[in-house]
Order: sequence, then C-alpha cells, then structure tokens
Amino acid sequence: MKALGYYNGKWGNLDEMTVPMNDRGGYFGDGVYDAAVAANGVIFTLNEHVDRFFYSAGLLQIELPFSKEELKNTLNDMLSKVEPGEYVVYWQATRGSGQRNHLFPDGPSNLWIMIRAIEIPDLSNRIKLITAPDTRYLICNIKTLNLIPNIMALQQAEEAGCQEAVFYRGETVTECTRSNVHIIKNGVFITHPANNFILQGITRNHLLKICERLGIKTEERVFTLSELFDADEVIISNIAHFAMAADTIDGKRCGGKAQELLKKIQDELMQEFIEETGKQPDRFSA
Amino acid sequence: MKALGYYNGKWGNLDEMTVPMNDRGGYFGDGVYDAAVAANGVIFTLNEHVDRFFYSAGLLQIELPFSKEELKNTLNDMLSKVEPGEYVVYWQATRGSGQRNHLFPDGPSNLWIMIRAIEIPDLSNRIKLITAPDTRYLICNIKTLNLIPNIMALQQAEEAGCQEAVFYRGETVTECTRSNVHIIKNGVFITHPANNFILQGITRNHLLKICERLGIKTEERVFTLSELFDADEVIISNIAHFAMAADTIDGKRCGGKAQELLKKIQDELMQEFIEETGKQPDRFSA
Repeated sequence: MKALGYYNGKWGNLDEMTVPMNDRGGYFGDGVYDAAVAANGVIFTLNEHVDRFFYSAGLLQIELPFSKEELKNTLNDMLSKVEPGEYVVYWQATRGSGQRNHLFPDGPSNLWIMIRAIEIPDLSNRIKLITAPDTRYLICNIKTLNLIPNIMALQQAEEAGCQEAVFYRGETVTECTRSNVHIIKNGVFITHPANNFILQGITRNHLLKICERLGIKTEERVFTLSELFDADEVIISNIAHFAMAADTIDGKRCGGKAQELLKKIQDELMQEFIEETGKQPDRFSA
Repeated sequence: MKALGYYNGKWGNLDEMTVPMNDRGGYFGDGVYDAAVAANGVIFTLNEHVDRFFYSAGLLQIELPFSKEELKNTLNDMLSKVEPGEYVVYWQATRGSGQRNHLFPDGPSNLWIMIRAIEIPDLSNRIKLITAPDTRYLICNIKTLNLIPNIMALQQAEEAGCQEAVFYRGETVTECTRSNVHIIKNGVFITHPANNFILQGITRNHLLKICERLGIKTEERVFTLSELFDADEVIISNIAHFAMAADTIDGKRCGGKAQELLKKIQDELMQEFIEETGKQPDRFSA
C-alpha cells in the first residue's frame, strides 16, 4: 500500500476510506492537525510534532482520548503497514461527531491519519514565490483545518508558475501558505516572532537552533516586504520542503547573495534528517 | 425520517451516512454552504439562498456541476423524504476529493445535503449576548466551512448562559457567530454595511426591505460597542432565529426601549414566512 487512511481504529487504502457525514471536520473544518516526514520507517522529529498537536488541540479545547505515547504508537503502527519509502504522515483530530451544531458535542474527538508518498526535495534547487495579502484569521499559531485562505493563495502561486505565496499584513511579512519564511541579511537569519500571526514551524525552530550552533546571528522580529525583496537570501521552511531558497518573488530576482551560508544551514538540517532516519537522499551529498 | 443526509446522489438517515475520507471538506473545510428553513414542505426564500450559494462558490472558484434549478429540485426532492415538520435544509459543496494537496483538484465538487428538525422560535422571547473579539479571516462575506472562530465564540456564549456572541474589531461591531446584529436607535434601524467583514444575511436583507416598507429609516453603517450597549433595541437575525431581540449583553441590560417598533418588524418578517410556507407557528399571533 502506498497511501493509507485510518479513522478511529479502522484503516485501509486511503482512496477507499470513508468517514461519518456527521464528523465535524466535514462541515466546520473543526479540528487540528499535524504532519511529519518519514523515511526508513522512522518519523522525523515525531516528538516535537506530537507535542505541537496536543498544544493545538488544547488551545481549541479539543479533548484527545489518547496519550502522546499512544498516538505515537498508532502513527508508527500505521507507517509499518505501507511499503518502504518516503512518506508524509499526517494526522488530525476533529471535535467529534453529531448533527451540525456550533456548540461542542458530547462525544470524544475523532482521530484521522493519512499517509502518502512524497519525494525528498533537492535543496540546491530554488523556488519561485508570489506575495499575497494575508486575509487569514488571527489564530495562525494553531494548526487548524480552516485553510481556505491558504488554499486560495497557493493556487494563485501555482497559476503564476510559482511554488509558494508569501503572506503580508500591511507592510509586514508573516509566513507562507504552508511554510514559514525567513531572510538572511548581512549574515543574520531573520524570522517573524512566534506569535498568533504565524505557525511556530518545527523546521523553523530547528533552523534557529542550527544557526546558533553554526554561530550565525538570529533575530526573531517582524520584517517588511522591502526587506524581503532586498534580502541576501529568502528561505521557506516546512517538513516537506525542509529549507528551500527562492530565486524570484513576483517575477523579480531575489536572494542568491549568501549562498555559502545558505548551504551550511541546509546541510546541517539535512544531516539531522539523515541521522535520525538513516535515509540518505539520492540528491544530497553534503 | 427526521434527519436526512445526501452525498452526490446517495441519501439516507443522516446519522448513518458516510463520505470519502478524501473529500476536501474533512481536512481543509474547503467548501461553501447555505441553509434555509422549511415548513409545510416549502423551503422559505429558497431562491435567495441558492443565489447566495452560487455567489459564495464563485468567489472561491468552486465549480458547481449543476444549475440553480437542478439544485432546487434536489433540495425539494430530499425535503419530500422527511416526515412533515419544520426543518433546516442545509447544503454545502466541497472542492472535490483527492489526497490532501492545497492545489485545486481536477474532479468536480461534491454536494452534501443535511436536513434536520428545528423549532420555529417565539420572537417575543429575548436572548442574552456576550461580546467577543472578531479574530476571523477577512472573507466573512463568503459562506465557507471554515468556522472555528465562530464555534469557539458561540461555545463561550453558551458557557456564560447566553445564546449568541457579538463580534467586534477594535471598537466596531461586525456581526455574530451565526447571525447578523442590528440596532434600533431613535427610530432608525442601523446595520453593518455588507462588505467583507460580515455575511450579507438574507434575513438582514429582508429586514432592510421591511423597514423601508414600514417607513422606518435605515442606515447601513458601522456602529460601535458603545452604540450597541446604548441602543433602544439590539436585534440578531438569521434563518433559524428570524429576528430576535436581546435583553442583556455581557450581563448588562440592553434594549427594550423600542418594543412597538421591534414587534412591527418581527410581525412583518413572520408574515412573510407564513405567506410563503403556509405555516402558522403555534406561538405566533400577529
């Protein structure tokens, strides 16, 4: 099996799985999720993702009827059922089931797991970005299923021949539709503070620690669109893209002026992945 | 049957219906909806709701694989399968199915219908409100499935012994979690302009027309929290609550100072319902 679906204890081929129409995911997007990359049967940085998942659930008062250890066991168990390869292991908890009613239902939350194959990216490639106004809600620190503004902006990027959209509020750059965005300027790694305007990405956290380890100065502060366009490097990060640099924003050339520093950071991140999973990506030769 | 579910041509008891795990509703809330009240087998103001549904779908580029007439026929057909009574007829279109990917899928959108019993409210009762910061996205004019901030605020109202939460941005009152909010002050009916900060409620539209008909001056303009607390009447409106007045906000007495005007407006709205559906609510004696 290359794509697995799991719902409250039942599992099977993802494309054949069904869920109750009364699950609050389907009509409210009322749930939280998290996801991690797996290779060699190991889910990379699983503890951190499970911690964040419980954090998201807590902020939305979604009670999870399992412990962190139980969840990790279930995720690992499901991963063992797909054939060898690289996967995104995605899971979500929806706030139970019932006929549509905004008020919290009585029953327990529902656990969904979706596992599908991915390719580990070649970080020497660069991606193209667009900018888009950030019209999202003010709880971007919670990893919820309410993702329509993200979908609309990423689709807009795709139609412009780009791979990601950078959100801005006023003059401030926040993050991207499914990744954080960072800049390097004069040797400093700059990223938006972890508040309610962005998701505190786990890859973002790792990048900050990697910079510290490498002696690269970091600043967690807001930065503007002008700073984005003027940066020495523009980097987006998430679990599936690791840390990829951009070469254009809205069709204008960007970055490319701190390539050595960029590669040091990328190599360090990829080494963490290799060390934890034992998987050496074909196109990675640090 | 008292609760019916429909999904892409299949229908049955709502509590037993299932949908594919790959439907984008379940993991993105990627869809739009609308809902109307039915009595005597007639769906009240159906044309307006179907028009708005197509409008919402258009704004999110969700292609609907049916015409307005076909949708109305399907909704009426499903309504004919439940036993006589009063219902909310709810329907939504999700942006197709496929393994999780932000980018638009190739396939057609999915039609969900959920029909469940309701009680027509007694408009001489008053409701209790709380206020809550409006943390929602900036596309509140689109009736989407991304409703987590609404859920959280309504639950907060419930836990405070209230029936609805009034959202505010800064000093400005926008709307409620599932209804519009209006005030009467010095004989004028005042309501937020229909822009991207509120849903253009169909009951709201009717109330504006009713006021015109009754010679009551209307103003579509932003109003503040102070004006809300200081209003002669505070009215919330949606399909299921028609137009109900409040008697407290955050525990403080409110409204009650333009009862005659309020009743005229409520009676007129209820008369429209009675005329279109032929249903005379037990507790209504205009």
